[in-house]
Amino acid sequence: MNKGKFIVFEGGDGSGKSTVLEMVYNYLIENGIDCIKTREPGGIKISEDIREVILDTKNTSMDPKTEALLYAAARRQHLVEKVIPELDKGRIVLCDRFIFSSLAYQGYARNIGVDEVYQINKFAIGDYMPDLNIFFDVSPEVGLERINSNDNREVNRLDLEKVNFHHKVREGYYTLVEKNKDKFEVIDAEKSLNEVFHSVKSIITNFIK
Amino acid sequence: MNKGKFIVFEGGDGSGKSTVLEMVYNYLIENGIDCIKTREPGGIKISEDIREVILDTKNTSMDPKTEALLYAAARRQHLVEKVIPELDKGRIVLCDRFIFSSLAYQGYARNIGVDEVYQINKFAIGDYMPDLNIFFDVSPEVGLERINSNDNREVNRLDLEKVNFHHKVREGYYTLVEKNKDKFEVIDAEKSLNEVFHSVKSIITNFIK
Repeated sequence: MNKGKFIVFEGGDGSGKSTVLEMVYNYLIENGIDCIKTREPGGIKISEDIREVILDTKNTSMDPKTEALLYAAARRQHLVEKVIPELDKGRIVLCDRFIFSSLAYQGYARNIGVDEVYQINKFAIGDYMPDLNIFFDVSPEVGLERINSNDNREVNRLDLEKVNFHHKVREGYYTLVEKNKDKFEVIDAEKSLNEVFHSVKSIITNFIK
Repeated sequence: MNKGKFIVFEGGDGSGKSTVLEMVYNYLIENGIDCIKTREPGGIKISEDIREVILDTKNTSMDPKTEALLYAAARRQHLVEKVIPELDKGRIVLCDRFIFSSLAYQGYARNIGVDEVYQINKFAIGDYMPDLNIFFDVSPEVGLERINSNDNREVNRLDLEKVNFHHKVREGYYTLVEKNKDKFEVIDAEKSLNEVFHSVKSIITNFIK
């Protein structure tokens, strides 16, 4: 379907996926492979505007379904403006989170229901499903400790969620991986950064051969 | 389903529905009937924030599906924060536009597809379908003339595009009314304001008896 390859990094907070994405991107570029890296909202003004509404700490009364629709809207615009044009050029697109994040976070952990969240995301993305998802598996305790030790990161509304929520997210990912085995590679993200990087690098170089 | 009654005013631009809603509301209040009037975003901060993103004139690259998802998100929040609490108190809620506006405007006139737009709106509103929709039927020519009557300008190219778009909206409403006869009352909104008001007043007082 996609002319290029659409590769998505998925996982809980503090799983190291963003750091590893950066490392893999640099590795690919150094080896002359035509790729880009992105994450929602990805500098797309409309998606940035939507993200501001989602993360506004004053918006504490936000209904979970409102939040899910806003994520789907930001996803749509980022996909149309940034991802699709790159895939059409035949490029490899490395993306930090996509549809399975919404299914795990909103569908499972917020109890909206995975089928319902899938439906609105299917509306948003059409046939642009990722060619490959890499799930960075980390326990919430390890993930949150990594986040809390990072002084450079601002705490937003979502960081304030309890550990319990992140356990639900992880369970959600497990169920999604189980149901979509052909679309996922699973990484033990509690290993050292270097080990994780080498595993992911190996998966991706094999996949794009 | 609803403890109160959820009554929605639908129709094209310049159909007079907002004016008549105000008149009916005043009539009901004067007659001691417990009701409220509202319209999206209805003063709900999150919905106002979302509306700002939709209406921002700098956001010209907005994809129609992004727009549809944003309308659904604003609708959800307004419903949860304002409409449902009033219905739960057993009140009559008069609302200016709801789900059928999205079906007519985005689903039909913008060609996204009515079933797809219905799905994301069903996600947004759940079982809170209006108890009654009143469709104010007006030809786009009359409607736009009413809107433009304040400034005596001649019709330009953009206005003509608008006329075509509003013809599609009207056709959309006709199809929706045909398919949902039990949910709609149709008003000839080209009659005088007073005649329209009396028809709507009569429909509503009969409906809430």
